Amino acid sequence: MPVPGPGYSITIRVEAPPSASAAGDLTSAVGRVGGVITAFDVVESHADRVVVDITCNATSAEHANEITEALGELPGVAVRKVSDRTFLIHLGGKLEVHSKVALRNRDDLSRAYTPGVARVCQAIAANPEDARRLTIKRNTVAVVTDGSAVLGLGNIGPAAALPVMEGKAVLFKKFADVDAWPIVLDTQDTDEIIRTVELIAPAYAGINLEDIAAPRCFEIEARLREKLDIPVFHDDQHGTAIVVVAALRNALKVVGKSLDQCKIVVCGVGAAGSAIIRLLQHRDPGDIIAVDINGIVHAERGDLDSNLEQIAASTNKDGVSGTLHDALVGADVFIGVSAPNLFGAEHVKTMAKDPVVFALANPDPEIDPLEAQQYAAVVATGRSDYPNQINNVLAFPGVFRGLLDAHARTITDDMLLAAADAIADVSNGERINASFIVPSVFDAAVAPAVAEAVRKAAQQ
Amino acid sequence: MPVPGPGYSITIRVEAPPSASAAGDLTSAVGRVGGVITAFDVVESHADRVVVDITCNATSAEHANEITEALGELPGVAVRKVSDRTFLIHLGGKLEVHSKVALRNRDDLSRAYTPGVARVCQAIAANPEDARRLTIKRNTVAVVTDGSAVLGLGNIGPAAALPVMEGKAVLFKKFADVDAWPIVLDTQDTDEIIRTVELIAPAYAGINLEDIAAPRCFEIEARLREKLDIPVFHDDQHGTAIVVVAALRNALKVVGKSLDQCKIVVCGVGAAGSAIIRLLQHRDPGDIIAVDINGIVHAERGDLDSNLEQIAASTNKDGVSGTLHDALVGADVFIGVSAPNLFGAEHVKTMAKDPVVFALANPDPEIDPLEAQQYAAVVATGRSDYPNQINNVLAFPGVFRGLLDAHARTITDDMLLAAADAIADVSNGERINASFIVPSVFDAAVAPAVAEAVRKAAQQ
Repeated sequence: MPVPGPGYSITIRVEAPPSASAAGDLTSAVGRVGGVITAFDVVESHADRVVVDITCNATSAEHANEITEALGELPGVAVRKVSDRTFLIHLGGKLEVHSKVALRNRDDLSRAYTPGVARVCQAIAANPEDARRLTIKRNTVAVVTDGSAVLGLGNIGPAAALPVMEGKAVLFKKFADVDAWPIVLDTQDTDEIIRTVELIAPAYAGINLEDIAAPRCFEIEARLREKLDIPVFHDDQHGTAIVVVAALRNALKVVGKSLDQCKIVVCGVGAAGSAIIRLLQHRDPGDIIAVDINGIVHAERGDLDSNLEQIAASTNKDGVSGTLHDALVGADVFIGVSAPNLFGAEHVKTMAKDPVVFALANPDPEIDPLEAQQYAAVVATGRSDYPNQINNVLAFPGVFRGLLDAHARTITDDMLLAAADAIADVSNGERINASFIVPSVFDAAVAPAVAEAVRKAAQQ
Repeated sequence: MPVPGPGYSITIRVEAPPSASAAGDLTSAVGRVGGVITAFDVVESHADRVVVDITCNATSAEHANEITEALGELPGVAVRKVSDRTFLIHLGGKLEVHSKVALRNRDDLSRAYTPGVARVCQAIAANPEDARRLTIKRNTVAVVTDGSAVLGLGNIGPAAALPVMEGKAVLFKKFADVDAWPIVLDTQDTDEIIRTVELIAPAYAGINLEDIAAPRCFEIEARLREKLDIPVFHDDQHGTAIVVVAALRNALKVVGKSLDQCKIVVCGVGAAGSAIIRLLQHRDPGDIIAVDINGIVHAERGDLDSNLEQIAASTNKDGVSGTLHDALVGADVFIGVSAPNLFGAEHVKTMAKDPVVFALANPDPEIDPLEAQQYAAVVATGRSDYPNQINNVLAFPGVFRGLLDAHARTITDDMLLAAADAIADVSNGERINASFIVPSVFDAAVAPAVAEAVRKAAQQ
């Protein structure tokens, strides 16, 4: 049952009688159908009527209608209009292009544009590296998608993916002062995506790939890394992996276990799951059991693509087979980046002592966190309404800040691990406990710490 | 002989003796070698020395060195550092990406990003036209180049072209509040350029092609106009043509001639010249004689590409041949978008009575304007240091503002002509005279007038 949240917040303007009980009637009508009022503003008051803006959180379009109808049915009340605050802030898009130079007069124009700009062009033509100093390339990252795997919405195409890419750019700016620009591509052909990114690359100091479906995303990233002299980072893979590795380090500290003795189940072997496995492997885990929709991944399964073949070859030391539920038996850690409601408390009970459960499927996790915590020592989700939110925004802004500051040409697993340690360290020491294994997404210390760690790793 | 201008402005920090004559010595040293001082700032004053920032305009790197040396040779004077103001304002690029939404807290994040953004994505997936309302597409234009014909610098490639594209974006913002983003392409293959622009188009409401060499630019524009449902405008063609048509309308008013009785020589038949000819032809000129590096364009010449063949077929009614100088004899109007110093006052003398000369080659015109005005009734150039500057910035910001406001899917010659008339009208009535046939590039009335005219034409 979804909870009304600010992601679905509506403002309903109503006309009501000026009676003493009007406010009470209105708020109870909303409450009766499950709406959560966050603001109640009287915008006009007359002898015969008041006009009120009621802002409340809902769960869905149907729920919003229900709330509106409940208000309209009150005696003497008329609904004037309903506005959706999420849509309101999206009107006209979320980004604009600002000029850093003033153009007050002819002299300014002569320097920022012709004829003065010609000398800047010539300097770059003579020494291409100067583009990192004298153009937007210095601080600008492309956020590239083909719209094939957007949030939990799937393949909705480039135009519909644009609001997410704009949101990503907003986060880049807010948390790390990185200028990010959305590139939404009207193709889902691997070769065309690679070639297009290659052709537009001269203006950017980094490429953030976003919401591109697996397994295509692996080839696109690998080939672009070969071709380009700027770092290429697929956030759905590495952003998630960085934060998971950080959170797991602190979670194991809470339960007093060492990674090299842990059996870790990773459920979901798409972009995120594969990257989590690969990054964890740098930290010598006891064993990893990968599980996908067809069960435990092992070399004999016969239905493996090249990504899964690689994973089968480097995980599951004993070559076990079976279901997710089989895998969980005796496991120290569950990491899910897959689908909702795959197991229950009774399966957590079969795990090793003090198990760690990261149920990260969005918006609905692999197991209800309240159910998981009946037996788990530490529980984390991707949700903002539960402790320990595993959110990529802890990683990508600082990662790119560090890459840009280092003028990095590539990105390595060492840099990803440095980022993970920086995140884990921010919430370290006295502060960590079972409900606090990662810092808040609004912790202003995170991005600078990640940036510094990545910059140092890049400069080594 | 180039004149020192603000496009080459340096600041020289010197240490000088604290004598009464020091200021005079410094300024005369600069003046002796032809530097033009625009600011003289004492930044430190001590008993034994003063530190002074001398800002002055120069003509070239050599000239800047000459000025610096002249100062260093003064007794007791030491040059500390020289900074180039044009380079200083380019440091880190001229654009940044700003967020229009605040992210103060979790609720803001829930609306601008997940989970709220998912509903905006779904709305666009259901109705793609909503992208013009709910994303940056509403107000954003791509400024696309392959770096093949940048300013007068030629084929300097995408990275070196970036400062010009950024400058263009600055102008778009300043004059018409259009968000423009540079796309610099690492290819000069016509098919690849077209395909790449097609693939990145979903985020944009218009495409401004820029500094792409002829004849490739014609095919790229034509094929993109076929493929895309947003307007495609090659500024080097149409921006120039709009302003020339506007300026010519007012120039002919000054000399009391009617276009349908004029013989017009257009010298240079690349992007700009071809577009000028085509736009003028909508206004029924008496005759147009096109001239390129091989002389007058006529159907029998045997060296014509498809662009020139079209032009030959629709100009030069009498099929004359010969040189530029032959073409000028008896001509009412000369429009040059070609190369420096092609003719002199003696050739202007051979033109019809009260000739109009637009010598627009940059930075050095086809004829020195001071020489032209010995016989011409109206003279215009592309330069800012002479009256009647023909500058695209009068056209493109307003043109795109109008296109965006109209949600235009295409651009037509009627819109271009409407833009030209709007520019001509701004400087109309009492105000026009031989030294004032177009408004100043800083005239704030121009872009809104152009936008309004284009919007109306687009909505018809």
